[in-house]
Amino acid sequence: MPPRSPLAPVSSPELPPVAGVRLSASACGVRYRDRTDVCLLEFTPGTAVAGALTRSLSSSAPVDWCRRALKGGRTRAILVNSGNANAFTGRLGEASVGRCVKATAAALGCAREEVLLASTGVIGEPLPDERITAGLPGLVAGLGVDAWAAAAAAIMTTDTFPKLATRRARIGGAEVRINGIAKGSGMIAPDMATMLAFVATDARLPATVLRSLLRDGTERSFNCITVDGDTSTSDTLILAATGAGSAHPRIARASDPRLNDFRVKLEDLLIDLACQVARDGEGAQKFITIDVSGAASDEAARRIGLAIGNSPLVKTAIAGADANWGRIVMAVGKAGERANRDRIKVAIGGVTIAARGQRVADYNEAPVAAHMKGRDIALSVDVGVGRGRARVWTCDLTHGYIDINADYRS
Amino acid sequence: MPPRSPLAPVSSPELPPVAGVRLSASACGVRYRDRTDVCLLEFTPGTAVAGALTRSLSSSAPVDWCRRALKGGRTRAILVNSGNANAFTGRLGEASVGRCVKATAAALGCAREEVLLASTGVIGEPLPDERITAGLPGLVAGLGVDAWAAAAAAIMTTDTFPKLATRRARIGGAEVRINGIAKGSGMIAPDMATMLAFVATDARLPATVLRSLLRDGTERSFNCITVDGDTSTSDTLILAATGAGSAHPRIARASDPRLNDFRVKLEDLLIDLACQVARDGEGAQKFITIDVSGAASDEAARRIGLAIGNSPLVKTAIAGADANWGRIVMAVGKAGERANRDRIKVAIGGVTIAARGQRVADYNEAPVAAHMKGRDIALSVDVGVGRGRARVWTCDLTHGYIDINADYRS
Repeated sequence: MPPRSPLAPVSSPELPPVAGVRLSASACGVRYRDRTDVCLLEFTPGTAVAGALTRSLSSSAPVDWCRRALKGGRTRAILVNSGNANAFTGRLGEASVGRCVKATAAALGCAREEVLLASTGVIGEPLPDERITAGLPGLVAGLGVDAWAAAAAAIMTTDTFPKLATRRARIGGAEVRINGIAKGSGMIAPDMATMLAFVATDARLPATVLRSLLRDGTERSFNCITVDGDTSTSDTLILAATGAGSAHPRIARASDPRLNDFRVKLEDLLIDLACQVARDGEGAQKFITIDVSGAASDEAARRIGLAIGNSPLVKTAIAGADANWGRIVMAVGKAGERANRDRIKVAIGGVTIAARGQRVADYNEAPVAAHMKGRDIALSVDVGVGRGRARVWTCDLTHGYIDINADYRS
Repeated sequence: MPPRSPLAPVSSPELPPVAGVRLSASACGVRYRDRTDVCLLEFTPGTAVAGALTRSLSSSAPVDWCRRALKGGRTRAILVNSGNANAFTGRLGEASVGRCVKATAAALGCAREEVLLASTGVIGEPLPDERITAGLPGLVAGLGVDAWAAAAAAIMTTDTFPKLATRRARIGGAEVRINGIAKGSGMIAPDMATMLAFVATDARLPATVLRSLLRDGTERSFNCITVDGDTSTSDTLILAATGAGSAHPRIARASDPRLNDFRVKLEDLLIDLACQVARDGEGAQKFITIDVSGAASDEAARRIGLAIGNSPLVKTAIAGADANWGRIVMAVGKAGERANRDRIKVAIGGVTIAARGQRVADYNEAPVAAHMKGRDIALSVDVGVGRGRARVWTCDLTHGYIDINADYRS
């Protein structure tokens, strides 16, 4: 078990209960010993749900199941295991999914389509689902409203800290809560990341509204982080709304202005969770925020930001505290998006290093060198062609990444 | 200076003279001390030329110059320096190019458009071109037909060995020669690589024919290697034909069947040089050959191969001698090309590990584990949708890569 990331938050937030949600975690021995590895989230009847799933063409069996089940827009349970991704497991994998869904639906007395699954861990090995179903009675018996931290811990793989976030929002006059947990630290790249995240609110929002909120929020959070450019087979982000909290005006459309505060707080929570994932990037020693402006569109800006954030040469330079802005320019050049080489502006730690296609005349490296020695690195690049902007988060590429990944399976 | 790559050829080939080509190298102190860092290739009048240049949108000043100069299809000289890429240097960079071209044209008595330039090294720092032009008289005085190895050494940056290759080919009844040198070990990715390569033949071929040969050959060689997925601002591949060798039938079109042997030998030489670059990948301990078949097209196969070859998770697994085929499947999934998850076949070292969407029943890891311990790793993947094929070469991702790149500029 690697030590806690130096970029981890000093402490995890305490998550208050969300009306209509109960959780529990258990050590089922899927792969790891002596730790919890399965969690169950139970939702009150009538809970609406939306999800965002990996765009990988070799998606896992649980992802395939969720893609189908989410169409109904209702959920009663999410069953998650770590240690085994149940990906590229063929018919065996589908059968495992079927048994887990059936057992959970029976235990909670709900329809199978109301049960969502997620699995994370090793790819290509059959899932010992009997260990999970054997643990289900205990999981159901242990359900409680305070087990958010326990659930976040159970879904960790190479994570060095559990990822939790909570927000309050107002809809009309009423206050609602949003809680979220996430995992992920490698195979992290947009669309989405080896990343599982489960977010629940006690607001009463229909699935159509949740889908819209989740799509927009994901675009500016989980789709803006990268650790290694690798996309998982298992990425799953679920947003559930129980409707069990304080009464608030009925919301039928995502464009309803009474949703504005909720939308902002949800996006803030998603960014918080996504940044925690980037801060736990395998081997990460520095957290990097990349602001791109002047691009042809927001989408172009995001692609440029990700080209910088995925460049091993940029990431190793930052690991070495080297303000190597030439590599940033190189990464802009390879992004394939419009940029005006002779108007590119690069700043590190707020200090402009290059402008109008060359290093500024009076460039003083000292404050930049001091910034590079810190934990939080800020890069900004203006590519000089338009008004598109994006913010992307990543981490440096260090010996720790190699240590973890050259030795993960064994 | 890092030690010679363990993947380097046991010895470099001796390159025979190519009629019409003279070379020299010199220590001009561009950046490095106590080593040669500039080389000059001189061609006999009437030499035809074609080039392939980086597709980076932030291409260097010398690349911009070559793009223009190559239109004429004639060359008399290539002047190359290491230590400074003259990239992202704005007007200063253009002025440096102008002075180098002017001085070289004057020294050799040729038109400026017949002088090609290439620079490799640090990005964003003004090129001290006066050191190069001061060295020109010595370079011209030192020109000789045997200096191929010296030229290959002078263009190295983080390379641990010089890269040379030679072939003989027949056109009609006559024998012609092809020599090539290359450099590159980081910022290596298709289109093309931080890669310079200069290839010369004594055959008499018009520029139109050279362009066609070079385009096809590059597609199956330099555009099929990757070290870190980063694309340089400076990639330059030049093919010059002096026409000073044995007389052979006049060739006017690339489709002339009398060119077949030359085409095969040229492609073989380009693959040889490209593989030497991948074998010198920064920190490389293992050379990886990836064969992709069953793709929708050859181009799709190449993209899938590069997605595998660029995956940090695949590359670190191989560094750790871990036959982690799940990560290979992950990389296929993220390539964005058609693949049939339930028909994917993966083999390592010739042993089939997975087929029809899951691990084969009688999979014996022992021979695969033994293969993974070697220096040359062979992966093959059939994605089960068509007849497209490609072969891609790369290397593993090790602590050495981090060492080199977290500490390059300082």
